[in-house]
Amino acid sequence: MTGSFITFEGPDGAGKTTQLTLLAEHLRRRGHAVRLTREPGGTPLSDKIRSLLLDPSHSEMDARTEALLYMASRAQHVAEVIGPGLARGEVILCDRFADSTVVYQGAARRLAKQELLAINRFATGGLIPDLTILLDCDAVRLTGRRKSRGGQDRIEREAEAFHDNVRQGFLDLAAAEPERIKLVAAEGSVTDVHNAIVKLVEEFLRRRGKREDQ
Amino acid sequence: MTGSFITFEGPDGAGKTTQLTLLAEHLRRRGHAVRLTREPGGTPLSDKIRSLLLDPSHSEMDARTEALLYMASRAQHVAEVIGPGLARGEVILCDRFADSTVVYQGAARRLAKQELLAINRFATGGLIPDLTILLDCDAVRLTGRRKSRGGQDRIEREAEAFHDNVRQGFLDLAAAEPERIKLVAAEGSVTDVHNAIVKLVEEFLRRRGKREDQ
Repeated sequence: MTGSFITFEGPDGAGKTTQLTLLAEHLRRRGHAVRLTREPGGTPLSDKIRSLLLDPSHSEMDARTEALLYMASRAQHVAEVIGPGLARGEVILCDRFADSTVVYQGAARRLAKQELLAINRFATGGLIPDLTILLDCDAVRLTGRRKSRGGQDRIEREAEAFHDNVRQGFLDLAAAEPERIKLVAAEGSVTDVHNAIVKLVEEFLRRRGKREDQ
Repeated sequence: MTGSFITFEGPDGAGKTTQLTLLAEHLRRRGHAVRLTREPGGTPLSDKIRSLLLDPSHSEMDARTEALLYMASRAQHVAEVIGPGLARGEVILCDRFADSTVVYQGAARRLAKQELLAINRFATGGLIPDLTILLDCDAVRLTGRRKSRGGQDRIEREAEAFHDNVRQGFLDLAAAEPERIKLVAAEGSVTDVHNAIVKLVEEFLRRRGKREDQ
């Protein structure tokens, strides 16, 4: 028996955390064993790496260092949490995964996408999400939402152009892998967005169930 | 004007730190601008990564996480210290560099060497040492020297077989790149080993000077 690996992607402020929590509650009510986790982080060691990454005092951090720290955190997360959870048959819901590194360090920081993909394969041992929900939302609206939250971390302080590149980077990934990555407009009410996500996830689980019955 | 990048490699306990210090003093007396540095570490951020790597409480660390943390530390070291120092024309003396990752994570931890080489290229932007001094010494003698030092870090606690693989891994690298990697037997007195190293380094600097005069 093998579980399902579902990731949420999208810019900061698009509502990923809220929607992940609602989806986890929904799936648990339906009887699924659900594990909610996030990147960077998800293990004690990965959380220490996360705090290096998000500390605003590290303004000298090189783009390659940043990419490799995300990858290190991911390798530990896969080895310690995601891999074992999938082996136990759980539904793993993960807030950001490898796509975020391709977009943030590739599309936005201009590191070579092919190199990032290769290092992701090394870090994850080739693990790819079964389903990715991309919450999409325009950059102007996001800036307002991020500012209203108050304190900004190192990544959130980046300039507007960076955030535009992030949005476009995610849209390009979704266009390249339409079977895996499903776009959800984050502009609606929390309930509307939740219902759209539930529809996509239940369709995915139904198809997966059918494949296993065959 | 461009500097010279000289690395020291070899198992723990072979005397790298002592010999690096003596070589730095020798070269400074000869009028060279010398920068002595080490991996993992060499920058404030890299030192924080070093402390994650060497903390004995991280016994759960996955081999891929470990490799990627070394690479992240190296990327920052190249960007912040080694690259700028070489641009200023300094002689950079570095205690361990990319070869250590290939040996410790590849030969000893059995990660794929080709993947490690590719990630090293990403981390260093393709920078390769001009000269590497490999201090070689048999494993039995090393175990005694490490134990006599007292406290052991996470890497030093590894089993004997690991240390045998490390020695063989270094010898294999030296055999594959005899022009760059020069073997020095670490069994002699501190002075004898120092004299052997000085001879190799001065020959290298003389050849480099001739190339620049042409």
